[in-house]
Amino acid sequence: MTTVYDVTTFVSPSSTSPYTDIGTVINEIMADIHATQSSQSTRPGAVIYIPPGHYDLLTRAVIDRSYIQIKGSGHGFMSNAIRDDEGFNTSGWFEIEPGGSHIRVKNTDGNSEAFIVQRSGSPTSVGRINGVEFRDFCLDGVTGSRPYLPGSGKVGISFASDNDSVRVEGMGFVYLSRAVRLFGADASYVINNFIGECGMGIEYVGGAIVPRVQDNTIVCPWAGHSIYIENCQGALVTGNLMLWHGSVKFVNVSRSSITANRFNSEWPGQIELDNNCSQILISGNQLYREGLYHLDSVGPHDDLFGMMHLRGNGHTVTGNHLGFDIGSTAVRPSGAQPTFILVASGADDVISNNHIMTTTAGKVVLDGSVSNLKLIYTTYGSGQLTAYSGASYAVVHLP
Amino acid sequence: MTTVYDVTTFVSPSSTSPYTDIGTVINEIMADIHATQSSQSTRPGAVIYIPPGHYDLLTRAVIDRSYIQIKGSGHGFMSNAIRDDEGFNTSGWFEIEPGGSHIRVKNTDGNSEAFIVQRSGSPTSVGRINGVEFRDFCLDGVTGSRPYLPGSGKVGISFASDNDSVRVEGMGFVYLSRAVRLFGADASYVINNFIGECGMGIEYVGGAIVPRVQDNTIVCPWAGHSIYIENCQGALVTGNLMLWHGSVKFVNVSRSSITANRFNSEWPGQIELDNNCSQILISGNQLYREGLYHLDSVGPHDDLFGMMHLRGNGHTVTGNHLGFDIGSTAVRPSGAQPTFILVASGADDVISNNHIMTTTAGKVVLDGSVSNLKLIYTTYGSGQLTAYSGASYAVVHLP
Amino acid sequence: MTTVYDVTTFVSPSSTSPYTDIGTVINEIMADIHATQSSQSTRPGAVIYIPPGHYDLLTRAVIDRSYIQIKGSGHGFMSNAIRDDEGFNTSGWFEIEPGGSHIRVKNTDGNSEAFIVQRSGSPTSVGRINGVEFRDFCLDGVTGSRPYLPGSGKVGISFASDNDSVRVEGMGFVYLSRAVRLFGADASYVINNFIGECGMGIEYVGGAIVPRVQDNTIVCPWAGHSIYIENCQGALVTGNLMLWHGSVKFVNVSRSSITANRFNSEWPGQIELDNNCSQILISGNQLYREGLYHLDSVGPHDDLFGMMHLRGNGHTVTGNHLGFDIGSTAVRPSGAQPTFILVASGADDVISNNHIMTTTAGKVVLDGSVSNLKLIYTTYGSGQLTAYSGASYAVVHLP
Repeated sequence: MTTVYDVTTFVSPSSTSPYTDIGTVINEIMADIHATQSSQSTRPGAVIYIPPGHYDLLTRAVIDRSYIQIKGSGHGFMSNAIRDDEGFNTSGWFEIEPGGSHIRVKNTDGNSEAFIVQRSGSPTSVGRINGVEFRDFCLDGVTGSRPYLPGSGKVGISFASDNDSVRVEGMGFVYLSRAVRLFGADASYVINNFIGECGMGIEYVGGAIVPRVQDNTIVCPWAGHSIYIENCQGALVTGNLMLWHGSVKFVNVSRSSITANRFNSEWPGQIELDNNCSQILISGNQLYREGLYHLDSVGPHDDLFGMMHLRGNGHTVTGNHLGFDIGSTAVRPSGAQPTFILVASGADDVISNNHIMTTTAGKVVLDGSVSNLKLIYTTYGSGQLTAYSGASYAVVHLP
Repeated sequence: MTTVYDVTTFVSPSSTSPYTDIGTVINEIMADIHATQSSQSTRPGAVIYIPPGHYDLLTRAVIDRSYIQIKGSGHGFMSNAIRDDEGFNTSGWFEIEPGGSHIRVKNTDGNSEAFIVQRSGSPTSVGRINGVEFRDFCLDGVTGSRPYLPGSGKVGISFASDNDSVRVEGMGFVYLSRAVRLFGADASYVINNFIGECGMGIEYVGGAIVPRVQDNTIVCPWAGHSIYIENCQGALVTGNLMLWHGSVKFVNVSRSSITANRFNSEWPGQIELDNNCSQILISGNQLYREGLYHLDSVGPHDDLFGMMHLRGNGHTVTGNHLGFDIGSTAVRPSGAQPTFILVASGADDVISNNHIMTTTAGKVVLDGSVSNLKLIYTTYGSGQLTAYSGASYAVVHLP
Repeated sequence: MTTVYDVTTFVSPSSTSPYTDIGTVINEIMADIHATQSSQSTRPGAVIYIPPGHYDLLTRAVIDRSYIQIKGSGHGFMSNAIRDDEGFNTSGWFEIEPGGSHIRVKNTDGNSEAFIVQRSGSPTSVGRINGVEFRDFCLDGVTGSRPYLPGSGKVGISFASDNDSVRVEGMGFVYLSRAVRLFGADASYVINNFIGECGMGIEYVGGAIVPRVQDNTIVCPWAGHSIYIENCQGALVTGNLMLWHGSVKFVNVSRSSITANRFNSEWPGQIELDNNCSQILISGNQLYREGLYHLDSVGPHDDLFGMMHLRGNGHTVTGNHLGFDIGSTAVRPSGAQPTFILVASGADDVISNNHIMTTTAGKVVLDGSVSNLKLIYTTYGSGQLTAYSGASYAVVHLP
């Protein structure tokens, strides 16, 4: 019994070539694993290797067993938008496609996902899916147009059943509506990936415990988020480089950290916490709001929304650098002063020791519903603070 | 001469199956390496590959040469405690064992370690062991009961001779007394591992220089520590997610960093520095003290011990978030106010810009022996500070 | 058509052994890739595997196609300086060379690089080189003497054409003038490497966007830098352990982060920003200035240069720990007080909440040209601050 598969050497029962439909070949490998790993205590899983090559995927691959590692030899990222949108003559380019272990997501089966990790039955009855890993290959949606969401609707990898200790590591993703989507993930690692030109980068839905979203480079425009997490405790979002619309949104997330990331964005809302969030530590981040290069869209929010838009209770916002550098004529609504940090609601936040560098006069804004907020060494005097009537707070301006 | 071994295809001189005793097979591979790499300047080492499968280990594997990389295809972690202790009916579970490249540690040789990295002779005479690597497989102690220490006494990997630039990366560990133990380690990497239900997670003993303990997920209960380091300079402990009793203990450690980690713990003592520690930077951490789910143990300390318990000199504690959220009736000793940060001794600490969120009134406490401490923007007024007579300090409360 | 090559099994057209000249063998593999991947849309690249072994490189390897992954099984680092300079009798050492997948860089072709990643033609005409990866092997310059720069002039890896999303990960480098040099790199990852006894560690020249320099251990002496970056926006320099002369220098770099690193250095200038730098976030770092062990060189700067030497505008320096621990007699110029932080020029810096521990009285120094600087909770009173006439600043000393 082998536990090491190679999509190019596996003998497909249906004689399908992996170059024609790698999804079918992987499903046939999974069927072989079902057949050979047939008892409850003899299911160590397998590694499915994808050598460098251009593969089409017509059929969604379904991973319903634990400990399956799907692994290539190269994230193969190329910027399709630079290829398609910049007006370059690409006739002399050596490569015009992404590469490495490169899968073109072209489902003809009516499904939207390239890979789905899922099993039927309740987790307590059938067990959660453990330790499935995706590593070092490329998922390419082939075509796309900004902002990619809803776009083609294509999804790179969807974890759709409760799962534990899964990994998505060292992958490339391009031209997908959603690159990685995780439902019910416990102790997941989504690290070291390259996600470009996707509508939504990394998305946790349904619920999650201690997800690790780390060291990714994510380039998504205005319609989605670089990182979206809902119903979660204990997220660690750290070391990510986010461009275009570098943005992290938390909905009903508690006791989590957003640290040491870098955010480039052409739109407001780099960090957004909803009003069920609590005790989020935001520290050591570098946020940059740059000019509107992409005037084809003004994005979902105007500049009163805030580079940071905070709701919920007990947050700690410290040691961050915020740079605002768009000409005042680009600020929306026209004539307004931009908001750097908006505390839109909530109690007991501490915002200390942040540094705002701006080319345009703007504000930290406290909604009237804010209570017991401490604002320390963040504002250059009262001219940089707007606190609406009713807000309770203490402030120490920069000296 | 090959330098690439596979435990499932290596021809065992003793005809041992790796499924029966992978330790013997690896020792036989090491003997082959001894025979084929026989001169001082022709010892590049080797890679020993462990395909996915369930392997028993009856005999300790001894790695006494440099540059040996032992590598699997999957950390294969499953929570054995959830399987064993939660009362679920597992008859319908698809998998009931950990998996991936899965080694069941069942020593019958009288040794406690699955792997020991060791050579005889003094390091100056025989050279240190360099560049040994363990990657992407699972070490499973098979059975265990809380708190796993002393428990079975089983050790996953012990580095027992002076060593340089070794790696433990992407591994899974479960049901061991001690997952990874390093003696005399210089510039080691212990990164990206999943350690669950072990007595002690990552342990540096004897002495260490610039260890890197990073990006691990560690789930250990009250008897041991997630991370324990002694006699060390220059540790970087960062990006770790620690649960159950998330705890880092330093003994005689200097000029080291504990940054951007997340600590969940049901017991006090998330960060503990002894009185020979100096100049430890503790920043950007998220600490959460949660309720006592496991009333079977009250742990080694009561709530006067401190979430942070600091001794030694010259520490910098800044930009941390501390959340204390147990009902006041759960505080021990009964009726006491819990201690969030205890500075038990030492000079010249700076504690600034931390945020304590609590559901129960409690304190930052300075022992009477403390000198020249600065406590800045951490306490909500004098009611949150207890400084014993003799303490010399300056305080700036939150405004 | 294969896309998986092994240098030890590839049939060399010139019958060259990879042990004799791995550079020629890799160039022949590249020629095979040119022949078999002949159309613009059928170039997925390849993986070139280097098993553990000692290989000589006489001829520079040229990588001119995208998506080439060159991969070994072991970084194989050994400290050659400890072997050569410490006076140990190595006759009983088990290993006296680095190992793993170990390449001895011995060019006889007149070139200085072991690997060059380069293609002719302008990037817009021929496309940038994407996704080339170097992983898990060792580049050893064989001989060296401090400070290795200019030294032998040998370069480990040079990326010499515009490139995108390349990776250098898990490598070992020793006894090279320059370990890794990148020109025109967009979204590169240089992570998890072990660089020792090289003149220059990681060097970005020409221009770079969002480079990630992370989790490396770098041991370089006084002539070069651990990390040097010029003409760049959006660098993330985090989690690096730097020894001997732990130093990061930025020239014309903006909106970048230096966070959570550890710097050991026997010389001043751990962090140096030139006057075209702007908005650099320096946070959560541990800096240690230790005694002069290597009296053979006094290095390029004296102790008035500063552990941090800052020029440019709008920087944020917060939450760092600085330890100065050399006897006062070792301070240069003799009798001077050392400078911990020198702000040599620039406007709008915020330096807050840092902790300086020193065994010798010294200073934070502000040049007379400095404007609108805020210095908060960093100095122990006015005796620790020298502000030259003309400097405009506000200060809040530690209480």
